[in-house]
Amino acid sequence: MKNLIIASTSTIYNGTYLEYLLPTLKEHFKNVSTLLFIPYARPSGITHDQYTDKVRTAFASIGIDVKGIHEYNNPVEAVQKAEGIFTGGGNTFLLVQQLYRTSVLDAVKEAVNNGTPYLGCSAGSNICGLTMETTNDMPIVYPPSFKTFGFVPFNLNPHYLDPIEGSTHMGETRETRINEFHAFNTQPVLGLREGSWLEVKGDVIILRGEHQARIFTQNKAAYEVETNTDLSDLN
Amino acid sequence: MKNLIIASTSTIYNGTYLEYLLPTLKEHFKNVSTLLFIPYARPSGITHDQYTDKVRTAFASIGIDVKGIHEYNNPVEAVQKAEGIFTGGGNTFLLVQQLYRTSVLDAVKEAVNNGTPYLGCSAGSNICGLTMETTNDMPIVYPPSFKTFGFVPFNLNPHYLDPIEGSTHMGETRETRINEFHAFNTQPVLGLREGSWLEVKGDVIILRGEHQARIFTQNKAAYEVETNTDLSDLN
Repeated sequence: MKNLIIASTSTIYNGTYLEYLLPTLKEHFKNVSTLLFIPYARPSGITHDQYTDKVRTAFASIGIDVKGIHEYNNPVEAVQKAEGIFTGGGNTFLLVQQLYRTSVLDAVKEAVNNGTPYLGCSAGSNICGLTMETTNDMPIVYPPSFKTFGFVPFNLNPHYLDPIEGSTHMGETRETRINEFHAFNTQPVLGLREGSWLEVKGDVIILRGEHQARIFTQNKAAYEVETNTDLSDLN
Repeated sequence: MKNLIIASTSTIYNGTYLEYLLPTLKEHFKNVSTLLFIPYARPSGITHDQYTDKVRTAFASIGIDVKGIHEYNNPVEAVQKAEGIFTGGGNTFLLVQQLYRTSVLDAVKEAVNNGTPYLGCSAGSNICGLTMETTNDMPIVYPPSFKTFGFVPFNLNPHYLDPIEGSTHMGETRETRINEFHAFNTQPVLGLREGSWLEVKGDVIILRGEHQARIFTQNKAAYEVETNTDLSDLN
């Protein structure tokens, strides 16, 4: 049975790394003694080792060891044997490029569909949707495809940002960008605000955290859903 | 001799479409009676016809006719015969996908390198750099490559946005995103603020408009340049 936490962000304003999620993660990873971390998204270009150290520190506080996937000679085997998997945030293009290059994409897909508990934050959440085509990230490298895990039957927009009132900036708002997505794609998009996450257990998808989420569907007006809403029928 | 205007945006705050650029464009396109417009970037998903109508209205005020490239049976031939070319803003991924699909990319590259005057705004400017890998746009479609015209020997970030003071949003700033680009790419990036443009005449590249621009180079601190700075040596 699928078992995922898909979080908008690792860090909320005035919080430390993963702090707001730790009580949830303690339960989510209760049978995990060593967590496999996928650091491929490299936020701000930090190394795999630096990134893994940061994650190790956060999980130490709930008694879970962390090992980076780059520490294994065979990353696919590392995924197959993992007790739990966490994909961290950073650049989604880089993350997806590396997931394809290493064949870790198919391995994680299979493991998570077979019940290995998964945590994604930001870029690591974006890839839980059907495609990465609603990421906010800059296309700093060219991945071989935009197709991603499809653990949920829609697309995700993490770090969803409401239009800034009184802004004089003429670049597109997030909502405009997602509407442009729907000129060419049919699947719904869930705008997940920082501090919100999806809890996925089997086919049941529930919105958790402190905020509403915003749902965009093709040819309809966007709408808000309250936290704890069951989103299992969104597709 | 190359002859380009590469503008951050088509529209500045409180202005109408292209208004702030019209005096410059009157001179730039002084030998053009019919301008070829490339509407492929389709902002907000509007149609090629709708977009071309908007551009037609703006250029009518300086006595220039506009024809959309989609009105021609042979778009490559339309480029080859064009007196002047304008590529409008919208979604860069969609624009680049269409430029490759129609073979218009190579045609425009050749025409502009041979002296056909060119105007780009936003997405139409982004593609004047070496790659589209510093666009702000959402990857709503998958183009066959991120390589673009290379009319200037660096990359561009149109609609460059300074970090918002006091923001509680935890998503990456524009500067962080460009720094991530430089973890994997060597070319400089020019952050072009709304209201600024580059004037390219042969190999001479000058910053024009009312703002400073911000220059990002690999392994060095970003810095500002004043308007009217000669950027011909930036590479």
